Amino acid sequence: MIAETRTACFDSLTLDCGEALAPVEVAYETYGQLNSARSNAICVCHALTGDAHAAGISHADGKPGWWDSMIGPGKAFDTDKYFVICSNVLGGCRGTTGPSSTNPATGKPYAMAFPVITIPDMVRLQKMLIERLGIERLLAVTGGSMGGMQALQWAAAYPETVVSAIPIATTARHSAQQIAFNEVGRQAIMADLDWNDGNYYDSNPPARGLAVARMVGHITYMSDESMREKFGRRLRDKETFGFDFSVDFEVESYLRYRGTQFVSRFDANSYLYITKAMDYFDLANGAGSLANAFRSGNTRYLAISFTSDWLYPSYQLVEVVQALRSMNRDVAYCELPSNYGHDAFLVDVGEQTEVVRGFLAATFKARA
Amino acid sequence: MIAETRTACFDSLTLDCGEALAPVEVAYETYGQLNSARSNAICVCHALTGDAHAAGISHADGKPGWWDSMIGPGKAFDTDKYFVICSNVLGGCRGTTGPSSTNPATGKPYAMAFPVITIPDMVRLQKMLIERLGIERLLAVTGGSMGGMQALQWAAAYPETVVSAIPIATTARHSAQQIAFNEVGRQAIMADLDWNDGNYYDSNPPARGLAVARMVGHITYMSDESMREKFGRRLRDKETFGFDFSVDFEVESYLRYRGTQFVSRFDANSYLYITKAMDYFDLANGAGSLANAFRSGNTRYLAISFTSDWLYPSYQLVEVVQALRSMNRDVAYCELPSNYGHDAFLVDVGEQTEVVRGFLAATFKARA
Repeated sequence: MIAETRTACFDSLTLDCGEALAPVEVAYETYGQLNSARSNAICVCHALTGDAHAAGISHADGKPGWWDSMIGPGKAFDTDKYFVICSNVLGGCRGTTGPSSTNPATGKPYAMAFPVITIPDMVRLQKMLIERLGIERLLAVTGGSMGGMQALQWAAAYPETVVSAIPIATTARHSAQQIAFNEVGRQAIMADLDWNDGNYYDSNPPARGLAVARMVGHITYMSDESMREKFGRRLRDKETFGFDFSVDFEVESYLRYRGTQFVSRFDANSYLYITKAMDYFDLANGAGSLANAFRSGNTRYLAISFTSDWLYPSYQLVEVVQALRSMNRDVAYCELPSNYGHDAFLVDVGEQTEVVRGFLAATFKARA
Repeated sequence: MIAETRTACFDSLTLDCGEALAPVEVAYETYGQLNSARSNAICVCHALTGDAHAAGISHADGKPGWWDSMIGPGKAFDTDKYFVICSNVLGGCRGTTGPSSTNPATGKPYAMAFPVITIPDMVRLQKMLIERLGIERLLAVTGGSMGGMQALQWAAAYPETVVSAIPIATTARHSAQQIAFNEVGRQAIMADLDWNDGNYYDSNPPARGLAVARMVGHITYMSDESMREKFGRRLRDKETFGFDFSVDFEVESYLRYRGTQFVSRFDANSYLYITKAMDYFDLANGAGSLANAFRSGNTRYLAISFTSDWLYPSYQLVEVVQALRSMNRDVAYCELPSNYGHDAFLVDVGEQTEVVRGFLAATFKARA
């Protein structure tokens, strides 16, 4: 399955902060075929550092999509049955308008002149894309982590459009600890002199700061147990400690590699804007309470969390499920066993596939 | 109780890496009186960023010691009964020889020419100090976190000297996750251009990098729950989000403040050397197994962990307790309930005081 990223362009998008972006581009990919009733479309939302390339092999670079384990013929999101859409988020750096895009007012990159964006802004742009593709209702909206926040936002803001929502490893609002981890990443980037108040597009990017932010992220995506299984206290290319500050342990080498590698594909200012959008997100805001956010529509829900995910612990999604139940919504909740921590929704997809497959088939049968 | 920091000087200390430091200074404080039998001495070991000022009010700056809640008249380490000693660790920056000390070979600070040090090196220097004070046997050696590693090392290396050991919220070896968090801190420091390969003593220290390292540390010292109770999603000095990159949430403000404040009292190179010593530490190394590390002597043990401590989770100290039991050692283990995370040994001392008080009294009666 060869995947190609396309771009849709819109004249303008009004944001929660009051400003408007004009124009706005959205990078997206689709997999499978839209049926004649236009009733089999699924919107997949990506996490902090993902992009539109969710499945198949990229035409551009030959790499598999970030959720290729879940999307494709015969997989959980079965492209023989469903039409799957994934777009790069607003504020991103992989084809959708973000801080690295050209500011039409200046002819230069927006940098920190880019307006602050929110999860609702991201979803508003996705809805414009869906409509452009001729789709009125989504059989499902899904995603893990920040993708799950978008799925919840979709269902709360556009209940008539969303037949079902599958939020995974996510929350309706960040805890102080989640805000704190994001803040450390932002501070690491802004501490790098090369950040230069965001104006680095014609010089060196803040590579060292962004790499440190990514390292912090990676630790929080894994569990204590999965790190032990993957690295333990194994030494890197040596028999004994170096007694110096070169790499001693394999886990050090892994973090440095992942940190450095990340810099080549991600924009530091996008990291700032997107993490801020995650921290601002609070579904109860404006609705009065979390339950009230789900007061209308008859969207069905499948909520999935993982036992070893300490970054988005199950209790956060249980709060969402309780709010949904208090509004008499149709909601199924599964806490799946996994040792992989927050990464489980990406890498430990056996049981996740089973529950998603069944839920989608039943939803399609009942509602499409 | 006014406390004064004194300094002891030694001609030379041979290190695990093979090099020798000459001379070596140790900053230390004492509280209470050594009895005539010299049988009531307790050695308190500090954690990563602590110092010799463990209790009382500092003569120099009027500040209370880092464990003033536990050490003093009528407290857990009752200075009406016991003679308590605390010294700044080797590699530190609070009076004991470390990277910021003058290298006699050059007349300038050691910086990264300081030899790599280990937890056993730290304890070897403490033993020299204890002997200088005329003490042959310690009624107890105790400490939390890295202080607990030193307590375990004391008991393993010098069982005839250590009547009892009270390791708290600690481990016999760092997990991959613990190494990873330390590595992120080191990378944040080394990513700061002001670090300059460690040569910053006559210019600006790497304040931004060290502040980021401290922020990461602070998150790991608290629990998800204690952060929620302390900060929640409360906004800082504003009614609504700023929609900019100033401080929005109280937790952000707290982390930035603690990060910045830390820079004025701690040396970045000491942070590198001490975290590396923690990561190298493995009591099983050289002994063949953890149990073998405790093969001789008849030291009594009280091991304490806390339910919400996810940085040094209870299972790590349970491994130590199992090793001790397998060697038929006298060991009591308490997992105390607390919401304060790793910080519990410093701030949630009610139950800790009770178990320590009883253990010390019984040990003093039986063995002193």
